[in-house]
Amino acid sequence: MPKVTGEQLEKITFHLFCAAGSPEEHSRIVAEHLADNNLTGHDSHGFIRVIQYLQQIKDGLLFPAAKPEIVRESPATAQIDGHRGFGQVVAKFSTEVAVRKAKEHGVSSVAMRYLGHLGRLGAYGEMAAREGCAAILFCATGGLALSQATYGGAGRKLGTNPMALAFPAEKEGAISSDFATSVAAEGKIRVHRARGKKLPDGWIIDKEGRPSNDPNDFYAGGAILPIGASVGYKGFCLAFMTDIFGSLLSRDGYPAKPGKQFSNGS
Amino acid sequence: MPKVTGEQLEKITFHLFCAAGSPEEHSRIVAEHLADNNLTGHDSHGFIRVIQYLQQIKDGLLFPAAKPEIVRESPATAQIDGHRGFGQVVAKFSTEVAVRKAKEHGVSSVAMRYLGHLGRLGAYGEMAAREGCAAILFCATGGLALSQATYGGAGRKLGTNPMALAFPAEKEGAISSDFATSVAAEGKIRVHRARGKKLPDGWIIDKEGRPSNDPNDFYAGGAILPIGASVGYKGFCLAFMTDIFGSLLSRDGYPAKPGKQFSNGS
Repeated sequence: MPKVTGEQLEKITFHLFCAAGSPEEHSRIVAEHLADNNLTGHDSHGFIRVIQYLQQIKDGLLFPAAKPEIVRESPATAQIDGHRGFGQVVAKFSTEVAVRKAKEHGVSSVAMRYLGHLGRLGAYGEMAAREGCAAILFCATGGLALSQATYGGAGRKLGTNPMALAFPAEKEGAISSDFATSVAAEGKIRVHRARGKKLPDGWIIDKEGRPSNDPNDFYAGGAILPIGASVGYKGFCLAFMTDIFGSLLSRDGYPAKPGKQFSNGS
Repeated sequence: MPKVTGEQLEKITFHLFCAAGSPEEHSRIVAEHLADNNLTGHDSHGFIRVIQYLQQIKDGLLFPAAKPEIVRESPATAQIDGHRGFGQVVAKFSTEVAVRKAKEHGVSSVAMRYLGHLGRLGAYGEMAAREGCAAILFCATGGLALSQATYGGAGRKLGTNPMALAFPAEKEGAISSDFATSVAAEGKIRVHRARGKKLPDGWIIDKEGRPSNDPNDFYAGGAILPIGASVGYKGFCLAFMTDIFGSLLSRDGYPAKPGKQFSNGS
């Protein structure tokens, strides 16, 4: 297996996106974000995503040159339309708007809509924390990718809906928490499948609602369980409220009807 | 066992607090809140708390006549000092401040310090939601009552640290979520003990860190586990970040050193 440094990874990714029609500025943001994720140990949100994004560009679902736009704002709030551009570009822009408004008014609220996969949500909380701001981030992923079962139920009813919290630290870095509000992010299951590994107990159910350790059962119509095992109603509440906060504040709810992003495991 | 209506419960509670030196206005707020909690099925946060509060008044820890005060504010933010008054009185006042500021500026942030047990956190989120506001509430309880173990650890390192989220609904009521960021609130263990019931698997460990189903093991130095079972690091993150958000934004961190509130199970 060839060894690739973070720098090489970022460079390869940058050129791949440029070749797919992305402006250099956008390619740089996405490449840096994905390489950082590999380097911080989150392979589920790193280079593994390049093919997915390229496919989405090819399919006309993702517009690499699209620029985020503030469509509605008040001094302390904003709603931002990503115009179906790279999630990383939209989220970085939105975080900058949120930080600027919070520094002016002590608090701010910013909602995003119509953006691609934004990578690792915690990265944007950490960006805010490095600027001295505490941050709470909700991401409703259910619009494009239902994957999580309700507590005690079968079938996919919610996205993996990550939630991130970050707080400024005295030393370099930030106090940061970022996790899917399901037992695992879909990408973690993808990594297990790619490595031919079984899943731990309690991660997924198959399409009939039976417990399974086979990552393929997820891609064959199974679902990821909510956090909490016997108190999974708590994890379900968190996932459900992340859905509400992550979609309704942008005034448009979900960006699209649930699609087949996961059904082929791409 | 005598049957008591919600109305009677509220009346009894009201008079008990008035007799303990609480102004009628404060007694009314606390009595209504506790009775409501019983009526919504949360006995852990209802009438069971009366003796605790009366004892705290007697011990000079809780000042029933204390009025909450805004000690620092900007147009969209406020820090409120409860002066060790009833948590219900301070939280109701703070919610009113938060709602007023949010209506004016689109978003607000309010932090509270020096207040007694505030009952059911979700009640304040629901109060905000009925006013048309979405609400996120963090409560760091660790200052007075360490009770939760870290993931994989033994001993009490964190409070049960509830977190509540609420969103306005079109129909009467609110979309509301409110739960301890440990497997269970301490009050739920108290209720099991009072009823002579065993605890479900995965709720607590004893003081040596061994799994236990005996509620008495908690009061003998055990700890409540974080949410998540095998992915308890997610629950721990949530509890830890609730600790940070629930204490540091008030600029004073915890109100006091961890005490012995739970060690005698009062």
